[in-house]
Formats: sequence, structure tokens, C-alpha cells
Amino acid sequence: MTNTDTICALATAPGGALGIIRISGALSLEILSHVFDKNLSLFKPNTTHYGHIKDGSEVVDEVLLSIFRSPHSFTGEDSVEISCHGSFYILNKVLELLVQNGCRMANPGEFTMRAYLNGKLDLSQAEAVADLIASTNQATHHLAMNQLRGKLSTRLSNLRDQLLKLTSLLELELDFSDHEDLEFADRTELLELAQKIDNHITQLAQSFETGQALKQGIPVAIVGKTNVGKSTLLNQLVGDDRAIVSDVHGTTRDTIEETMDINGVQFRFIDTAGIRKTDDEVEQIGIERTIQKIHQARIVIWLLDQRPSWDEIDEMGELSKGKRCIYVHNKSDQIDLHKFRPYFVPLSMISAKTGKGIPNLKRRIFEEAEVAGLTTNASDIIVTNARHYDALMRAHSHLQRVLEGLNENLSGDLLSEDLRLTLDTLAEITGGQITPQETLNNIFSHFCVGK
Amino acid sequence: MTNTDTICALATAPGGALGIIRISGALSLEILSHVFDKNLSLFKPNTTHYGHIKDGSEVVDEVLLSIFRSPHSFTGEDSVEISCHGSFYILNKVLELLVQNGCRMANPGEFTMRAYLNGKLDLSQAEAVADLIASTNQATHHLAMNQLRGKLSTRLSNLRDQLLKLTSLLELELDFSDHEDLEFADRTELLELAQKIDNHITQLAQSFETGQALKQGIPVAIVGKTNVGKSTLLNQLVGDDRAIVSDVHGTTRDTIEETMDINGVQFRFIDTAGIRKTDDEVEQIGIERTIQKIHQARIVIWLLDQRPSWDEIDEMGELSKGKRCIYVHNKSDQIDLHKFRPYFVPLSMISAKTGKGIPNLKRRIFEEAEVAGLTTNASDIIVTNARHYDALMRAHSHLQRVLEGLNENLSGDLLSEDLRLTLDTLAEITGGQITPQETLNNIFSHFCVGK
Repeated sequence: MTNTDTICALATAPGGALGIIRISGALSLEILSHVFDKNLSLFKPNTTHYGHIKDGSEVVDEVLLSIFRSPHSFTGEDSVEISCHGSFYILNKVLELLVQNGCRMANPGEFTMRAYLNGKLDLSQAEAVADLIASTNQATHHLAMNQLRGKLSTRLSNLRDQLLKLTSLLELELDFSDHEDLEFADRTELLELAQKIDNHITQLAQSFETGQALKQGIPVAIVGKTNVGKSTLLNQLVGDDRAIVSDVHGTTRDTIEETMDINGVQFRFIDTAGIRKTDDEVEQIGIERTIQKIHQARIVIWLLDQRPSWDEIDEMGELSKGKRCIYVHNKSDQIDLHKFRPYFVPLSMISAKTGKGIPNLKRRIFEEAEVAGLTTNASDIIVTNARHYDALMRAHSHLQRVLEGLNENLSGDLLSEDLRLTLDTLAEITGGQITPQETLNNIFSHFCVGK
Repeated sequence: MTNTDTICALATAPGGALGIIRISGALSLEILSHVFDKNLSLFKPNTTHYGHIKDGSEVVDEVLLSIFRSPHSFTGEDSVEISCHGSFYILNKVLELLVQNGCRMANPGEFTMRAYLNGKLDLSQAEAVADLIASTNQATHHLAMNQLRGKLSTRLSNLRDQLLKLTSLLELELDFSDHEDLEFADRTELLELAQKIDNHITQLAQSFETGQALKQGIPVAIVGKTNVGKSTLLNQLVGDDRAIVSDVHGTTRDTIEETMDINGVQFRFIDTAGIRKTDDEVEQIGIERTIQKIHQARIVIWLLDQRPSWDEIDEMGELSKGKRCIYVHNKSDQIDLHKFRPYFVPLSMISAKTGKGIPNLKRRIFEEAEVAGLTTNASDIIVTNARHYDALMRAHSHLQRVLEGLNENLSGDLLSEDLRLTLDTLAEITGGQITPQETLNNIFSHFCVGK
């Protein structure tokens, strides 16, 4: 795989009215000129042209070409998009002709990789392109779009600037340590700066959990005794009959998951086996899984159909410690409200069977997610990528060593290696390179020698 | 459904890296201006522009717009193609925004219908667009492309010109019947002209059978005694194990069909039940179906594994009367060639088990299709559309009445209605209208009054 090849690929899914074939590389127009019936050299950048793709004298398709010239294209190279009729035969034939005339079939992600290599995107933005294409709801779309538009890159760039400032202050302390008349930032200030940077890094790393929840759906466990209507509630929430509903106690032995959007955020509802004392071994396994699922959930819906005993109330509290809980009374037509109010406020009243109260319950679920900080707003930067999370955690541990060193009053040269590692590790995320030259330049740009 | 609406639709299949949304109608740019972050009024036709689709302040996607201005677009109207990232969320959101701002979701085929209504394509060309998109091999692609490029339209236009000439000659005969000094084409000439036109119409109508064979695959029946290796041969030809192969006589009780391309032409291979005397009722039904399949086939492969008796040779000849036959000897390793040569020349020798001889057999099959006129070449006009076939057959029957009238020496005014019907029926194919004015104009343009 070289980056001087001219590459081509189908950029749309096959099977529509139209199909787009993308070409990128220095020879894009040259290669295309062998199969297109108009003189491409006359075409200006960013224009579209009607014409024919020909295989010798045979017309393969009537197409529209869009011409892009380096560096003003997605990849930064000369590129062409060919809008063909969406027939399998045509799309294959056009690709075949391009390859015969010197194109190479592109590898997965190769256009975006070229955009990165040509400086059109940084690494995290390139990764956001894939996330954007995979996004299925407003929240994940929002995260990917923020990342593509460089919000994470900007935040990381700020952190690197602060780390470079820290580095330059330490190196300065080192270079001029003989000049007792020069004043430097004292160690307390350096420590504060390092701590502040570390807080930001930790905050970003912690956002990964939210990012994961948003990407995979915020886990909501539906828990309660057997036969209280958990599967019926799941069906009502997701709007089909995915879960098996029966009147026999203990029907749901395995956990069933369904995702759905509420206000553009994806929730993953987990129907669980009913909790009750049982001798059935299989059912017992189901109950243990329920307990695991409660641990993994961010929100727990406790579904009740009668007033719980004090022991049961204690058990619920114990099982769902640290979770956002929603207490819901099912079979609302059969209930004496007075018996509940003292214990569970607010208590949602529903009828899973008729659907009564379900819209209110959905609103509650979304509010709990908001309170738990699991929804996004335009200003949030949330890490969704495991590679980024890993780099942030490693940067954090390098910075921890810097902090320890500062606390122990180690000299600057002993700290510089860990600082360098922190910078390099953060740079992995966007793919930039911290060169020693960059560090030096930074020192002198911040430092006024005349003073 | 009105044609003044501005319509939008996803033009590509969902699920790729890119998705194209098409907008067409007078308000295309006006509607788009509410959701795009650049000033569209400055954009020249046939140019592409990078920018953002926004929902209020939120960026929905970074997109490329291609701008087309009436009449220089596919539909003939102002139109825009938006190249988005291929996420379901984005594509739905963009369509939603367009609809909120005044677009209507397009009906199936509505862009092509507008192209027809705006005179960019005739009806048969519009129909070819759908065929082109559905084409899966070179032959069907070729037919659709010829039709899209107007080959059928031109042929029909020639036929209409000749019919108009016939009409004008008859009407002239009528108008000037009192002027005995004027000379007209005599009835023999008119009859010859009408007959010539009818021959062309019939020829086109007859090509429909070939068109159907090419579209659905040229039917090739594989026939022979039980256990001669028919299913194994089918598997070798289509390259997978679609047919059940077993050593038990009479395994294939139902007919099995598989299509595959040879030299860009699609063949439909039909494995049949073995022909033998049987008391098994189910198997007897299978054998009757085999006989039906032979009737429907264009090419029959007789598969043998031993020298047939004279009775069997007679039976084969009887069953496949009028078909292109290929006699194939399977199990070529076990055969004494001398026992075959006198009866079947050329005889293809294969081993269905090892695949020996299969490439030669495929060549033979293609050659038989060529001889039967079932393959296409660049100059062929082949009718593939049932609507066209129906119109041609009706035109033919109207023209038959004209021919009868001419034979019976009926006067021109009695023939003109059938001629008009012939013209109108042919015009249905391309969707044009023959107005009386057109007939009149034609008369005078062909006629020199001064003479």
C-alpha cells in the first residue's frame, strides 16, 4: 500500500438508483480520461460534468462527474466522484475499467487515511468520520460530529499547550539554575498547574463511561418479582413483542435487551428474570444474572404490583445502591395509592397491559439519565473511543509520576522524561508528533530573554 | 401529486460511506437555503460546494452540494444533489429538514417521470432507466442502454414517418380525387409500403421473445435418463451445489433452476427429473414437467451415459423438435467413443464429476444461443418491455385491417381510422401524441403543391 497510487472504490451501498464511485490520487483525471468521452483537462475544479463512461466503443453508463483538485478535496489529492446508475453490473464494470487503466481498489478507510496523511483531518477527526457514519441517533451523531469538527482536538491542544508551558518552566529552571538572581515559578505553582492539567485529563477519561453508555445505549434494568409484568413493560417501551410474555411465574429466564430512543438518546432496556426464592437451578442462574445486570445498569426500574415489605424495601435499596432508581407500580387499575405514597415518592403509576402511564415513564427515564449526566449538550466533550480512553489513562499515569516528583521536590531533569511521555501519549490521540524542537521553540516563544 | 412541488428523496441505497439526497423543483435552492450555511444564490450551475446542513444551530452534516439549473438537469428542473455521510440518522434528518422547509418526499420514479414530462426523455427511454438500474449482466445492460440512448425511439420514429407518409398519400388521394389530372401512388405501391411497415412492426414484436429470454436467462433444459448425472452437471455449470445429488435413481423430482452468465449472457439452466418408465405417481408428475420444460427451453442438453437405442434416439428427436440440441456424454472416462460417433455429431464429452469438458460445453451452449439469435450485438433493437410488446401487437392488428382494406380496394377515408389507430398505438410506446395537426403538417411538408 503506497500513498502515491490512485485509488478507487464504491462509496455508496450498492442497490440504489444511483451509485457513487470515488477516485483519489494524482492520476485521477489521467486514468479517467481513458474511459470518459470528454476532455477532462478543460474541466475546472468543483464542477460537475455530464458524459459517458465507455469501454471501447460501448457505452457503459451516462454519468455525472464531480471534479476536485488538490488540495481542495476530502483527501487533499486530485479526486473525482462518478455518479452512476446504481446497477451492480455498471458499478462493477466502471470499477473494472478504472483498475484496468491504472487505479488500485482502495482499502477500507483509505480515503480518510489519506485525508489524515495530507493534513486535512487529525487522527481523532478521522476516527469521528467512521463514528458519524455509524451513528443511529441524535446523541451518538452529536458526539461524532463534535469530534469531527475538532472539539476534542482543540481541548487536547489546550492541554498540550499547558503541558508545554509546564515543561518550559521546568527546563528554564534547569538551564538557569546557576543564576540565583533569576526568579522562577515556585514549585507550588508548578504543582497546581500539573494538578489542573491532570484533572482535565481525568475528566476526559471519565467521560468515556458516558460515551460508551451513549454509544451502546444507556443500560436500564427492569427488575421486580416474578409475574409483575416486566416483559409486558419492555414490550410497551420498545413497541413490539420482543419479550415472551406468559402468565407462568418465571417465564423470563435469560435477560432480554432491547434498545430504543427517547428524545434522541438511546436506551438499552434489560428485561430480567423475576427475583424470588426458587429451587429451580436454571431460574436461580437467571436471578444471579439479574443481580449482575443491576450492577451494569445506570438506571434501575423497580416494578411493583403490591406494597413491598420492609425487608423487600431494604433489599431493593441494597441491590441498587448508587443507581438512579425509578419505582413503578404496574396494574395501576388495581391499586390503592395510599398504601404506596409514604415509601416511594415519586412513584410512577402504569398499566403495562394498556400502555397507560408509559409516556410519563419515558419522560422520567430520560430525566434520570439527564440527572446522571448521561445526556449530551452542545458544549460537552465526551470520549467515545477506546483508543483515546487508553491514551488518556496512560497520560494520566505519566502525569501522576510528575506530580509525585514535584511533591518530592525532584529536580526538573528527573521530571522531564515523564512530562515528555505525557505529551507524547496525548499526541497519540490526534496523531501529531511532539518533537524536541517543538519543546524548544515553545520555551523561547514564552520566554523573554531581555528580562 | 403535482409537478410544481419540489421533491426530495434518497437516491442511493442506505448503508454506505456516502448517501445522495436528490432535490428537484423550482424551490430547490430556496428550500435548501433554510438549512445550508452558505449563500446558494451565488452558486453557478454545475458546480459543487462544501458546507454544512444545519438544524438551527446544530450541524447535521458536512456535505457537498451539486447545483443544477433548469433546463440543464436530469429532470429539466432546478435540482440539487446533496452528498452526505451515509448514516441512517443523518440521511433521515436531512430529508426531515427538507420536508419541514417545503419539500415533498418523491414518489417512486418521480424524478424520471419529471424528466419525461419536461421532454428530457421519451417514455421508452424513461422505462430504460429502470431496466438499466436492474441490469445484472452485459446483455441486459446492453439492451437497456440501447433503449435509453434512443435506439428503439428512433426506430419507432422511422416507422411513424413511414406511416405518416402512407396516411398523407391516402389523404391526398382523397382531397384531390376530383382532379383526374393529378397522379398518385397506385394502390400496389401503398400496399407494398404498408406491408413493409408491418414487417418491421412484427419483427420488433417478435424480438420480445429474445428480450424475455435475455432478461430472465435463456432457458436451457438438462434432460436425460435417471442417474445419468444431470444434477452433477448443473452443479458444475453454476458452480455450487444447488441441486441435490444422490445415487438413488429419481432423486430430482421437481425441476430446479439456476442462472449463470456465459460471455455476459444469462442462461437459466433447468435440471429435470430423469425420463424413465415409472409407476411412482410423484415421479410421473416430475417427468411430465420435464416434458413441459423441454417445450419452454430454447436449448436442450441431452445427457447420455451409454449408447441409446434407436427408439430412444427417435424419442429424443420427437421431444426436442425445433430446439437447439446439444448431445453430451457424461462419465467420459468410461466410454467407447466409436459406439457414439455415427449417431451424434458433434458429441460433447464431459465428466460432470471431475469437471472435465465443462469449459468446452459452456462454449457450445453460447454458440447454440448465438445460432438461435439469442445473443445481442450493438446494432440489435430488441423489445424487452411487455407494454411495448402489447402496443406493437395492437399496432400490427390495426395495420392488418389497413392491409385488408387496401387489398379490397376500400377508399382512403375508410382506411384512415385504422391508420390513425396504428400511429397512436405506436406513439404509446414513446408517449408522444399524434395530433391531427401533425398529420396535416406532414402532408404539406412531403407534398410539393407546385408540381
